[in-house]
Amino acid sequence: MNIKLMPRVEDIDVKDIKNANVIVIDMLRATSVIVTALSNGADAVIPVLEIEEAVEYRKQYKNSVLGGERKGVKIEGFDFGNSPLEYNTENISGKILIMTTSNGTRAIRGSIKASHIYIGSMLNGRAAAAKAADGSDVSIVCAGTLGRFSLDDFLCAGYIIDELLKIKCYELDDISFLAHNTYVENSSDVQSFLKNAKHYRYLESLGFKDDLDYCTKRGILDIVPQFRNGKIVL
Amino acid sequence: MNIKLMPRVEDIDVKDIKNANVIVIDMLRATSVIVTALSNGADAVIPVLEIEEAVEYRKQYKNSVLGGERKGVKIEGFDFGNSPLEYNTENISGKILIMTTSNGTRAIRGSIKASHIYIGSMLNGRAAAAKAADGSDVSIVCAGTLGRFSLDDFLCAGYIIDELLKIKCYELDDISFLAHNTYVENSSDVQSFLKNAKHYRYLESLGFKDDLDYCTKRGILDIVPQFRNGKIVL
Repeated sequence: MNIKLMPRVEDIDVKDIKNANVIVIDMLRATSVIVTALSNGADAVIPVLEIEEAVEYRKQYKNSVLGGERKGVKIEGFDFGNSPLEYNTENISGKILIMTTSNGTRAIRGSIKASHIYIGSMLNGRAAAAKAADGSDVSIVCAGTLGRFSLDDFLCAGYIIDELLKIKCYELDDISFLAHNTYVENSSDVQSFLKNAKHYRYLESLGFKDDLDYCTKRGILDIVPQFRNGKIVL
Repeated sequence: MNIKLMPRVEDIDVKDIKNANVIVIDMLRATSVIVTALSNGADAVIPVLEIEEAVEYRKQYKNSVLGGERKGVKIEGFDFGNSPLEYNTENISGKILIMTTSNGTRAIRGSIKASHIYIGSMLNGRAAAAKAADGSDVSIVCAGTLGRFSLDDFLCAGYIIDELLKIKCYELDDISFLAHNTYVENSSDVQSFLKNAKHYRYLESLGFKDDLDYCTKRGILDIVPQFRNGKIVL
C-alpha cells in the first residue's frame, strides 16, 4: 500500500488519485473552516470556485450562509470570512455553508476522480488518517497557495502521514517521506516551524494570530467531512 | 533577490526562470557526468532527448563519443553509460560527448528561457553557486526522476542554496526554504539521508555504489558548465 503526496493542486496526477482515498488539505484556512463548521453543526458545506456562483447557490438554499475569502480577507457582502473561529455553533448550526476560497475549493474539485475525498487539517488529522486508512492507497492533495508550494499544507500532510503510519505500513514516495520527516523533526513545535511559511506570515500580518493558534492544534476534532455530489457532509 | 526552486521538470514556470540564472540539477547522475567529463577535458557535451538523435549527432562530429542511459543502464551500442567514473581523462579528453539521459536532458531543454543555464551537482555545488550569484534572481531546476519528485536532486538544491546564502542574502520561497532546511539538518551525513531516496536505492541495487559515493562528494570540482546554443561548455 502506498502513500502519495501532491504538494500543489497543479501536481495532481489522475493516475495517483484514481482508486485512492484522497485527503485534501488547505489548513490555512479552508479545510480548518470546513471541519470546524461541520463539527459545530453545519448541515453541509458547498465549495464553489467563483463569488457569483456562491451568490447563485444562496438563492437555492434558504437556510444558507456565505463564507470565504480573497487574498485572505472576507468577501464584500458575505456573512463570514475564512476564519474558523467565526464558524461557531451560534453562527452555523443547522445551516448550509456556501464557501468560496482561493485554493481549497480548487483542490477538492481537482480530486474528483478519487474513490473518496476526505477533508483534512491538523484539527482532524488523526480522524482523517483513520478514515483514509480504511482502504488501499492514500493520496494527499495539498492546496498550496495560489499555485505555489505551501509549507503549512506540507507539514500538515506530514502529520497525517505520521498518523497513517501508526495504523499500518505504507510505502512512501520521496515527497511523502520528506513531508513525514519534516513533520517528525518539528513535531514538538509546529508553530515555530510554520513561521517560515510565507502564507503563515501573511495571515499573521493581517491579524489572524488566533486563527493560526487554532489551526495548528492537532487531533482535537474527531470528524471527517467527505465531499460527495458537490457537497461536503459528515 | 530571490531563490526559486522547481522540484521537477514538470514544475518549471517560465516566469520563474526568465531573467534568472538557472542551475539545473540531476545529480544521480547526468549532471555529475557532465561536470566530470568537462573537468576531465571533454570539449563539449551535447544533450539530446532521443537515442536516434544522439546517433545522428555522432555522424556530424567525428571526434565524439556516445553516452547515456535508459532506466539507469548503458544504451546498447553506446560508448559509455551514465556513470561519471567512466568519463576519465583517457576516455573523454578532447572529445565531444553526445549524451542522452532520461531526466537531465529534459531539465536542461526545459530551462531554455533562462538568462543563463548552469549545470549543477554536489561535485561543483560551491562553484555553481558562485557563478549563479553573479546576477539577480536564481532559479534551481531539479530534474526529478521520470516525472516524480526526487529526494537526491532536492537535497543537492538545498546544498547549493546553502552555498548561495554564504555569498549574499536571498529571499527563499517555501520550497527553497524546505530544501535548505533539509540540507542543513542532514549536511553531516548526506549519504545516510539519501538512502531514503528511491532513485538512490535503485542505483545501489544496480551495483553503482561507487557512483553514489562519488556523486555525493561536495564541492570537489571548481568548474561550472554552461548550456549555450545546444551545447554544454566551460
